[in-house]
Amino acid sequence: MAGKRFSEKHRLVYYDGDRTYHASIPMLVNLMVLASEDQSEELGVGTEEVSKYGVGWVVTQYLMTINDLPKIGSTIELSTEATAHNKFFCERRFSIADEAGNSLLEANSNFVLMNHKTRRMGKLIPELLDPYGSDEVKRITRLPRVPKITDDQGTVSKEYPVRYFDLDTNGHVNNSHYFEWLLDVLPAEFLQTHIPTRLNIQYHKEIQYGHIVKSEVVKTNETDTEINTLHKMTVNGEIYCEAECSWKTVTAN
Amino acid sequence: MAGKRFSEKHRLVYYDGDRTYHASIPMLVNLMVLASEDQSEELGVGTEEVSKYGVGWVVTQYLMTINDLPKIGSTIELSTEATAHNKFFCERRFSIADEAGNSLLEANSNFVLMNHKTRRMGKLIPELLDPYGSDEVKRITRLPRVPKITDDQGTVSKEYPVRYFDLDTNGHVNNSHYFEWLLDVLPAEFLQTHIPTRLNIQYHKEIQYGHIVKSEVVKTNETDTEINTLHKMTVNGEIYCEAECSWKTVTAN
Repeated sequence: MAGKRFSEKHRLVYYDGDRTYHASIPMLVNLMVLASEDQSEELGVGTEEVSKYGVGWVVTQYLMTINDLPKIGSTIELSTEATAHNKFFCERRFSIADEAGNSLLEANSNFVLMNHKTRRMGKLIPELLDPYGSDEVKRITRLPRVPKITDDQGTVSKEYPVRYFDLDTNGHVNNSHYFEWLLDVLPAEFLQTHIPTRLNIQYHKEIQYGHIVKSEVVKTNETDTEINTLHKMTVNGEIYCEAECSWKTVTAN
Repeated sequence: MAGKRFSEKHRLVYYDGDRTYHASIPMLVNLMVLASEDQSEELGVGTEEVSKYGVGWVVTQYLMTINDLPKIGSTIELSTEATAHNKFFCERRFSIADEAGNSLLEANSNFVLMNHKTRRMGKLIPELLDPYGSDEVKRITRLPRVPKITDDQGTVSKEYPVRYFDLDTNGHVNNSHYFEWLLDVLPAEFLQTHIPTRLNIQYHKEIQYGHIVKSEVVKTNETDTEINTLHKMTVNGEIYCEAECSWKTVTAN
């Protein structure tokens, strides 16, 4: 796999973290996206350049493997590279390492180019793709689909009206908020004593300002060493996002 | 005014901003608090040291004057100093300047030490105060009280259940979320075309996880050059926070 690799460091400060003294998943998503934005700027294909073509990059799926979440006060190294693409899809990898170089989080993701007017995905544009040096392939790695929640699985839910500050500079809901809605629905007591080990999230439709997002969760498996949860987010009964998560127990600080 | 001055730089990235391409007020509050935390660490009286005394710093009021909000992509300089104190109150000033050194935001604030067990304020502790070199005075500057919303002023309101990720590492609601609840209640169209010029916020009681915050706003004055809004936040009908804000029109990007 080719693709230019980009790395940068980030000091994790108090507002990056949660009660477990670890960086929160929503903030780590912000930071991964920041690394890819900074790489794009460096290669001359930042947001401004991309929008000249009437399009924007949109993530359709993340699959994260989490060895450990970084601690607040530590400095992490964020790395990313566009590894492969076909006519419509890009595959981008991310990793987060601690100060000693130990891998804390690895993520694979799929991105598409969405037309700003039609709000539909289109063919990738060579001028916006070539600078990353990613491999052209017939089929990009198929990330596993998120299993559907079946009707007989009773879910717990909360509703989240989209807020003004959930929108980024382009008026889209910032990706990290999906993770906030996804996780907040779980009891605080659970979130204080567990961290995710694997997180697979598929975005189906764009959540927008004015929407009321219903976030649902069901625990599908619980053993001594692992707990699994299945998630979905709907707007007016229509599925916008699905996710599955595996958890391990940690001792709270 | 004495008090050791502390400064640090911060690059404003995409998730620090909102649709106006300016840094959002909630994020600027995060950054001001970060500067004061970094100063405290440098002086050997960081959060860990303070908590050894069974207490924590709590802000009771901010008064901000905003010349302009910094743009996303720019680097700002954050400065802070503890300027004065009496037996119970500390006065701390903050400023944010752009790369050319122009002042964008000036804030004055009052802090107290809250006992972790009793959740009540107590006398300031010399060991935690002396390192800042602030002046001991009889009376600290009285920041203006926020005018009360009267019963005949019809307000617009939204409700905000406190979320898990609203809590900081100590389990307190991070200050910046008060500003999110305060501002989000205004229409998106208004927030996209106006920026605050003055913001006065008084914290009366601690909002906690499990609370449903009702954020109310009323427009009290509107001329060609200035709009004023009055705000309050209640939990079960009890006032937890009050604020007033002045606004000017800006051209949206």
